[in-house]
Amino acid sequence: MSHSQIGLIGLGTMGAMLALNIAEKGFDIAVFNRTTSVTKTFHENAGALASKITPCETIEALVHAIAKPRAIILMVPAGDPVDQQIAALRDYLDPDDLIIDAGNANFHDTDRRAAEAAKAGPRFLGIGVSGGEEGARNGPAIMGGGEQQDWDRVAPVLTAIAAKFDGTPCAGFMGKGGSGHFVKAVHNGIEYADMEMIAEIYGVMRDGMKMSAQACGDAFAKWDDGPLKSYLIEISGKVARTADPDSGKPMLDIILDRAGQKGTGRWTVIEAQHLAAPVPVIEAAVMARNLSARLEARKEGQDLFGAAPEALPEGTLSADDLEHALIAGKILCYAQGFEMLRSANAPFDWDLPLPEIALIWRDGCIIRSAMLDDMARALTDAPERNLMYAPYFAALLKTHHAALRKVVGVAARYGLAVPALSMALSYFDTMRTERGTANMIQGQRDFFGAHGFERTDRDGTDFHGPWAM
Amino acid sequence: MSHSQIGLIGLGTMGAMLALNIAEKGFDIAVFNRTTSVTKTFHENAGALASKITPCETIEALVHAIAKPRAIILMVPAGDPVDQQIAALRDYLDPDDLIIDAGNANFHDTDRRAAEAAKAGPRFLGIGVSGGEEGARNGPAIMGGGEQQDWDRVAPVLTAIAAKFDGTPCAGFMGKGGSGHFVKAVHNGIEYADMEMIAEIYGVMRDGMKMSAQACGDAFAKWDDGPLKSYLIEISGKVARTADPDSGKPMLDIILDRAGQKGTGRWTVIEAQHLAAPVPVIEAAVMARNLSARLEARKEGQDLFGAAPEALPEGTLSADDLEHALIAGKILCYAQGFEMLRSANAPFDWDLPLPEIALIWRDGCIIRSAMLDDMARALTDAPERNLMYAPYFAALLKTHHAALRKVVGVAARYGLAVPALSMALSYFDTMRTERGTANMIQGQRDFFGAHGFERTDRDGTDFHGPWAM
Repeated sequence: MSHSQIGLIGLGTMGAMLALNIAEKGFDIAVFNRTTSVTKTFHENAGALASKITPCETIEALVHAIAKPRAIILMVPAGDPVDQQIAALRDYLDPDDLIIDAGNANFHDTDRRAAEAAKAGPRFLGIGVSGGEEGARNGPAIMGGGEQQDWDRVAPVLTAIAAKFDGTPCAGFMGKGGSGHFVKAVHNGIEYADMEMIAEIYGVMRDGMKMSAQACGDAFAKWDDGPLKSYLIEISGKVARTADPDSGKPMLDIILDRAGQKGTGRWTVIEAQHLAAPVPVIEAAVMARNLSARLEARKEGQDLFGAAPEALPEGTLSADDLEHALIAGKILCYAQGFEMLRSANAPFDWDLPLPEIALIWRDGCIIRSAMLDDMARALTDAPERNLMYAPYFAALLKTHHAALRKVVGVAARYGLAVPALSMALSYFDTMRTERGTANMIQGQRDFFGAHGFERTDRDGTDFHGPWAM
Repeated sequence: MSHSQIGLIGLGTMGAMLALNIAEKGFDIAVFNRTTSVTKTFHENAGALASKITPCETIEALVHAIAKPRAIILMVPAGDPVDQQIAALRDYLDPDDLIIDAGNANFHDTDRRAAEAAKAGPRFLGIGVSGGEEGARNGPAIMGGGEQQDWDRVAPVLTAIAAKFDGTPCAGFMGKGGSGHFVKAVHNGIEYADMEMIAEIYGVMRDGMKMSAQACGDAFAKWDDGPLKSYLIEISGKVARTADPDSGKPMLDIILDRAGQKGTGRWTVIEAQHLAAPVPVIEAAVMARNLSARLEARKEGQDLFGAAPEALPEGTLSADDLEHALIAGKILCYAQGFEMLRSANAPFDWDLPLPEIALIWRDGCIIRSAMLDDMARALTDAPERNLMYAPYFAALLKTHHAALRKVVGVAARYGLAVPALSMALSYFDTMRTERGTANMIQGQRDFFGAHGFERTDRDGTDFHGPWAM
């Protein structure tokens, strides 16, 4: 009876797709869903894969269907449901059985669960799974965290179901505790930023250059053949070129400009703040989503301050300007994301494999792109170096920062909101300015709070000014 | 013996100044410090005020020196020391005695302590005290949180020691639990942003317009006579015009451009994220402080990407452009801060008195300014309205957003980093654009995750596009 090589609990969209993916790769899998009818329907609809799948009506049946030592994937909503499921499983599992949380956990929870597992068993692995429904079915990117031996035990399954880039599985072990879910959170933050920069460039084309949705889509499609080649650019082109069957209008023109969010971008920027790791492009993206919800206030603003934004004079910006600005913005955003990953090593006692993370993100996940292959090379070459200083990307920035400047400057002048691109540029200009302006801030702080400052002309950390109050 | 009207524990800089201030206003005060010699020295140096001060060598003596029902101010380091002090006091206090935490507490801690006090006593009040050392001595701004009756009991002391604006004390009751410390945290976030915008304008003058520190100081001094009139502009002028006695050079030119921080700006942006309240100017300021610490990386950036920033051609920007940009930036930053305060009401079940907060901030605290008087009027007029839409400020923005645009656009072009001003502008442009670009983001999200979208042409929340995968 105990013939299944792995189990899976939670047959929602993601869990169902993952289970089919596992079965398709030749593994026998036992599945369970709280609602028995869901399990039955899933099995009935599994087609040729049904023979690899053992549907179970109880937790006990699921556990008994799996060969020892067992491995069970949880794909249930993040938060309490995960803890409840672990508690329910504990009665049936042996100490060396393994629970794998593949949901969207907050990595602090994963850290806690890993610590609890180390004390009371069963074993625990937290894996970040990226790629949405389609990725789960056909090959997601997988970032694992926990004990190396537990990862090794299930790596045959996880690498088999993962996306492949040039044959290399987009799956890897990140380190202990919540590191896998942490890396996934940073991925999601970058995803927010990437999407926002694309939306801003779309806005420049639509409102500044008065391009149709179709024309915007054509531009994205063209860029998808260059350095920007990526899933998000590809689907932006497709979205922009799709017509609404009902109205005949472009889909983009009938979609309301109020963006939803599941909070993962917010998590990322909060963690970045705790780490003192600047991720301003992600912050700008989260802001943009929050403000997009204020439809009434934005209408009030437009009524009050006049039509916005303004059309650009013919020839102000070229398609190349936009492409190059987006390339520069993307490099800077990813540089911030990888710096955030690096900054987590010391406080969490991790040693996140940055080059491997770039390799994993090359396919399967939402931010998959050609550029991540170059990033993997740059990080392999010098794991401690900020990506913006790596020769390949520095060369791109040298030629393209002028375009980013131009787009941000023009947008500022004509009232086009480009917060993410602006923060990419601000980050670049701050990081290329040896002598910044924080001397003024230190002067102010010493003036009102005697906080002290350092001097440029001698060592020491607690100098004070002869301020005349 | 029990003749003191109030007690104070913790004679560090802030505590000592607060105690002197209280004594000077005619109140008998008993003081205690963990290190007895500190208490003695403090009393010996109190001069004419010594007769109002009862130095105590033990907690027990302090408690006995205060008339019942007692009120004791804690001015000890935030965090564990506060909890330890409360625990130590509990043995000696009656249930209706009152502990007042005047330190820099995280408002979540204050909430917790208030809840604990409600159960086990003694009574508890958390007050945010702003104004640094000088404010504590001569009149700080005070924001109280807890039970109204407890505030009322000590209000005679707190309003007496507070700063006065046109005779009105800069002290008030914000609401229950941690509301006083929350309002103080938002104050500190605004302080970060205000300082950063000033530093950015200083950078434009220094690096773009090649003005001397003295000339920058003269500009600030002049602006301190206009709408920007404020403590921070005043001291920025003084800082810029001060010479280093050792080298003879301007102080600003010898202060290292690495800014310190005590983490209060970070707290504010983290709370803002939890509240989904966009405070992008504060976020940019926190980023700028974090990046200022990366001196080596910034030097590497300058070596790699060439001398930065560039000088502006003569006449590119005028002094008026800078002043007007700063006015617009300041309005937008404060608008964000007050929106953040408002957004806390529902989740924390508060009813923060926004007009009164503006009144309190007019004097005593670091961000004190003439403009806050106008903000108080605007908020009294319409407490639910975003400040940027209030007639007085909307009129200022209408005339001045062009200057903000110009400064941000020029800075982008010439490589001057102005992250906070950029985000002020991005916020303005987003909030004045009825039709934003989040429709692209919703299209992408529906494409890869079937998240659904709303339509512009009909009601409903879960439409999907006919995407061709």
